[in-house]
Amino acid sequence: MIDPWSSAVLDYEKLIEQFGIKPFKDMMGNIKDPHILMKRGIIFGQRDYGRIVKAMREKSDFAVVSGMMPSGKMHIGHKMIVDQLVWYQTKGADIYIPIADMESYSARDIDFEESRKLAVSEYITNYIALGLDFTKKNVHTYLQSENKVVQNLAYLLGRKVNLNEMKAIYGFGGSTNVSHLYVPLVQVADILHPQLEECGGPKPTVVPVGPDQDPHIRLTRDIAERFKSKFNFIAPSSTYHRFITGLTGDKMSSSKPKTAIFLSDSPEVAEKKVKSAKTGGRESLDEQKKLGGVPEDCAVYEMLLYHLVQSDEDLKEIYSNCKNGTVMCGECKNKASSMMKKFFEDISQRREKAGDLAEKILAKD
Amino acid sequence: MIDPWSSAVLDYEKLIEQFGIKPFKDMMGNIKDPHILMKRGIIFGQRDYGRIVKAMREKSDFAVVSGMMPSGKMHIGHKMIVDQLVWYQTKGADIYIPIADMESYSARDIDFEESRKLAVSEYITNYIALGLDFTKKNVHTYLQSENKVVQNLAYLLGRKVNLNEMKAIYGFGGSTNVSHLYVPLVQVADILHPQLEECGGPKPTVVPVGPDQDPHIRLTRDIAERFKSKFNFIAPSSTYHRFITGLTGDKMSSSKPKTAIFLSDSPEVAEKKVKSAKTGGRESLDEQKKLGGVPEDCAVYEMLLYHLVQSDEDLKEIYSNCKNGTVMCGECKNKASSMMKKFFEDISQRREKAGDLAEKILAKD
Repeated sequence: MIDPWSSAVLDYEKLIEQFGIKPFKDMMGNIKDPHILMKRGIIFGQRDYGRIVKAMREKSDFAVVSGMMPSGKMHIGHKMIVDQLVWYQTKGADIYIPIADMESYSARDIDFEESRKLAVSEYITNYIALGLDFTKKNVHTYLQSENKVVQNLAYLLGRKVNLNEMKAIYGFGGSTNVSHLYVPLVQVADILHPQLEECGGPKPTVVPVGPDQDPHIRLTRDIAERFKSKFNFIAPSSTYHRFITGLTGDKMSSSKPKTAIFLSDSPEVAEKKVKSAKTGGRESLDEQKKLGGVPEDCAVYEMLLYHLVQSDEDLKEIYSNCKNGTVMCGECKNKASSMMKKFFEDISQRREKAGDLAEKILAKD
Repeated sequence: MIDPWSSAVLDYEKLIEQFGIKPFKDMMGNIKDPHILMKRGIIFGQRDYGRIVKAMREKSDFAVVSGMMPSGKMHIGHKMIVDQLVWYQTKGADIYIPIADMESYSARDIDFEESRKLAVSEYITNYIALGLDFTKKNVHTYLQSENKVVQNLAYLLGRKVNLNEMKAIYGFGGSTNVSHLYVPLVQVADILHPQLEECGGPKPTVVPVGPDQDPHIRLTRDIAERFKSKFNFIAPSSTYHRFITGLTGDKMSSSKPKTAIFLSDSPEVAEKKVKSAKTGGRESLDEQKKLGGVPEDCAVYEMLLYHLVQSDEDLKEIYSNCKNGTVMCGECKNKASSMMKKFFEDISQRREKAGDLAEKILAKD
């Protein structure tokens, strides 16, 4: 069976079986105009997404929470999150974007002022360039260190979480510093605070994450339950997306520049990086013509799948041409790198225009 | 040797020897117009108080930090703290009064709103009645939950304090909840934040406490040292006062109403309570006439010593008359209870007038 949406990088099916994450595809029939990341199985899992589907259908209140941790540069994999936020914005969601400066400090020793600068110049600027409309009232962007409601909620919630539990989930020990131990509660509060009365009261909330974040989602859902009688919280829903493969075939990561195409790269650099990426090609041209390529193992195909090709028909054709041995890696890379260059020309123009607005967003406080 | 200022309730000398607290009397020669609590040895110990003496002499900036934890009613023992603040106000100190609503929540499950109400109606009202002038600009009163500067400083400091250390100082274990573990850092930040640039920069700071709070003072001084290069903190100074003996001969405590005279008691009730207090009298009147009384074991004498008799001459006479067996407990109690009644008539009048101002103090935020 041919599955043009498949990926072999991580065994995501196992996650679904072992931890009670449900397949996202079960939801697809009920979602109007699903995002291509949904259609293509890149968003592969969910918890309690049914209540989000219901809210979208009934046009009732719901929220999306997706934090950014300002610690370096955004790469093209991060675009996935912004794409989802843009989609949710069209669906009428309240969008909450915590900037995790408190986490940046305890995890990376980046101080609050540096975080603020980085959040503006790198993250918010790129979010705007990628199409999120921050001028809408339903977008709530804040620095954790500036948000009293979130900080106080974190503290309130911490009364029903004990040290043993934190150790079991996060592996903390005696040498863990107190801020590092405490900050997961701030993230729990990031997710739950849209349900406080002062933010409009209890509502379905979805958190789009990578599967590595699931322990944190489970903790948040547990804590929501423990404070149900006080705040009437609805346990937050979540979706899980695959990671994007890096240029070298490993996971793309900002801390390993050779794996990543950064959103701040020039169009020429982005183009060149695509050309240098690891493909699913065979040892020789002859072999590839005979056996076909392996798009499932191809970082270039993944860029097309995740980001560059919007039309499902076009993507199917690219996939078949590879599988059949009709189109070789060189030709495919040329095409993909041109598309990437064009995308980067576009985004760098839009980023230039975004700067002024980006400055204003955190100045509101 | 006769020492009219002595007390046998706790062996304070041992504290001085074991933990490096220095005797307060070493400082007395250098303090202009020392407070009677100082002169009478009720404030018996100190750490680094020399820098406070110097600041007072040179009229340079210094701060006093003294928190209130709103969890019940103020008793006459708490008056000692307010008396010291009033004295420091005459010496030109910046006075910081954190209201420990975060601690009240984790320790007693009192929510922030309840803490605020209690702080206004009970604590601040009594502080005003006892003579602290909140209309002066140098008095900074705040709820921990409302103070972003303090909360963020707590988090910053927490990066250099680990779990092992918290366990050793506070006896925390696996079942300790995260908020309870975290809140000591908020108190550390209460003490150190007056030295931040936004609060006027590094300055000598003194924290008047009971000796049971010394572990916390030591932690604060250690943390100040760890962040010296970043904030240029001066290690905070501290003074230590004796506890007041309760009516029953044990420690006076709000949670044991039989031990305490509450500031909100009516003048008649206060008068009656003094009359019922445990004295240092002998088994029989004859014996007492022969041997004299034991003011060191007398809760009534302590009230005179700590609160009711301002003149040292008068106090010495009361002490001698007791020791010599000249004045018996009945007569002494009558005198002391009248003085207490008068004091309570006075304070209840002043408390009535204080209500409106008390409301305004926390409304500023």
